Amino acid sequence: MQGAKLLEGRVVAAAVHERTRQRVDQLRRRGVEPAVIFFRVGEDPASELYVHMKKKRAKELGILSEVIALPGSTTERELLTRLEEKNRDSRIHGILVQMPLPRQIRVETVCQAIDPSKDIDGFHPINAGKLLLGDPSGFPPCTPAGICEIFRHYGLVTAGAEVVILGRSNIVGKPLAALLLAKGPQGDATVTVLHSQSRQIPEHCRRADFLIAALGRAEFVRGDMIKTGAVVVDVGVTRLPDPALPGESRIVGDVHFKEASQVAGWLTPNPGGVGPMTIAMLLANTVKAAECFAGCGEG
Amino acid sequence: MQGAKLLEGRVVAAAVHERTRQRVDQLRRRGVEPAVIFFRVGEDPASELYVHMKKKRAKELGILSEVIALPGSTTERELLTRLEEKNRDSRIHGILVQMPLPRQIRVETVCQAIDPSKDIDGFHPINAGKLLLGDPSGFPPCTPAGICEIFRHYGLVTAGAEVVILGRSNIVGKPLAALLLAKGPQGDATVTVLHSQSRQIPEHCRRADFLIAALGRAEFVRGDMIKTGAVVVDVGVTRLPDPALPGESRIVGDVHFKEASQVAGWLTPNPGGVGPMTIAMLLANTVKAAECFAGCGEG
Repeated sequence: MQGAKLLEGRVVAAAVHERTRQRVDQLRRRGVEPAVIFFRVGEDPASELYVHMKKKRAKELGILSEVIALPGSTTERELLTRLEEKNRDSRIHGILVQMPLPRQIRVETVCQAIDPSKDIDGFHPINAGKLLLGDPSGFPPCTPAGICEIFRHYGLVTAGAEVVILGRSNIVGKPLAALLLAKGPQGDATVTVLHSQSRQIPEHCRRADFLIAALGRAEFVRGDMIKTGAVVVDVGVTRLPDPALPGESRIVGDVHFKEASQVAGWLTPNPGGVGPMTIAMLLANTVKAAECFAGCGEG
Repeated sequence: MQGAKLLEGRVVAAAVHERTRQRVDQLRRRGVEPAVIFFRVGEDPASELYVHMKKKRAKELGILSEVIALPGSTTERELLTRLEEKNRDSRIHGILVQMPLPRQIRVETVCQAIDPSKDIDGFHPINAGKLLLGDPSGFPPCTPAGICEIFRHYGLVTAGAEVVILGRSNIVGKPLAALLLAKGPQGDATVTVLHSQSRQIPEHCRRADFLIAALGRAEFVRGDMIKTGAVVVDVGVTRLPDPALPGESRIVGDVHFKEASQVAGWLTPNPGGVGPMTIAMLLANTVKAAECFAGCGEG
């Protein structure tokens, strides 16, 4: 039996980066230097690594970036004051606040404090609203946008298809539902969203032409939950102890890869599937913000 | 065979109005006079009637209201200027612009021009975004909020249930999906949204515990598309020529009422189902806006 074809996020991300680089060049020729600020609060090693990767990639694409690392004791008000400075700074086109934040800082308050026109993470309510209303002028969150870009790259058409999304988070499940439900060739899907309160989850999964797993439950999707030939996207990231290497851990997705690869038609590897798309879409959003600022947006 | 029980929107609306009246009284005791502005542009008789009904009901509840009727030749800029005046007027808590608008005025521009904290129709992107993100501080659109209120009134629990929504409009389908997908006893449903591009619509409908028809296609939902005992909500309003009275027309919903009443467990009459809820939720939103303004919001 032939295995599922791989949806290689790294390859798609490289194609997005190449387009972003060209757009950066165009902007520079017009005298606009795309620039992004990454805020980081506290000493989380994973956050440090993520921000480092984003900054490195931005540099490769010619996007100016600055990391503002604040101590873990930073108050909400202090962070908001720093955000406000960057909101007002017309040289800055994108602002990202790396999650997670220390307890004393409310995520919602921070998301709402970023100027929506610089909100490259797409977490501001006004960008979530534009997404729901089908208004393309906003910024879609990076992971859902990356999933749609993978479909586009591989010519996988969602119009009229049965899409089943496992998970209703604000970062993946709900915005992805909005994107795939929107009118147009990249949307037009029949979308069902499942979550912890849902019943008959395996039955729903089995009727999916596109199955997107974003629950955060290790290997939740087994082979017998997948329709033959379906497109399966694994967004989950769970860190489990590695039985082979005591003291070490391994990353496990929401999909049982080995079983899925025998049933699905298309499947994301994990890692190497959705993950690389996130930075790609973040920097594409940054350039979109700079283009809008310069009045030459692609839409 | 026993027929479906009726979901009487008029009764539910009366209960909402009574609570709104009490909240108005509380506000007045604290020196706050809830006040709403209705804008109307052009000479559409249906719009005139709708605004008249809203004003009349507002008065009954003790809410101050004013209708600003502008000529059909009003430019977008003129309307925006008038809106801006009312945005700035701290005596006004709610602002509604009656649809439809003349062609020269863009609906999206108008929706985005209303101060989100006065946006009692819930059409501003920031309110749509709060809805999608599960933030209760915004204003939900009136028709979806009214449908949820009907369920609450009759003790119909959506948690874990299969909800199928026919139609993906920005006014009904999409915001209703967001409401029913949200965490909490009024949501927590497994939600599927169907639309013009969907396949196997009858099969989807037949598995629905809650079926909401908001397509605008006369009597689209037949008896054989309904699961026995399901809750069926008919949002559709289509005006058809009346064969019995030449030259006259009759209102037909999206659901074949007679057939549905023999299969469904609960069914909205149409008219008298969802319709009356719209004004009820609009005025409840107005009072919520006034409460937020006065710093005593119910949430």
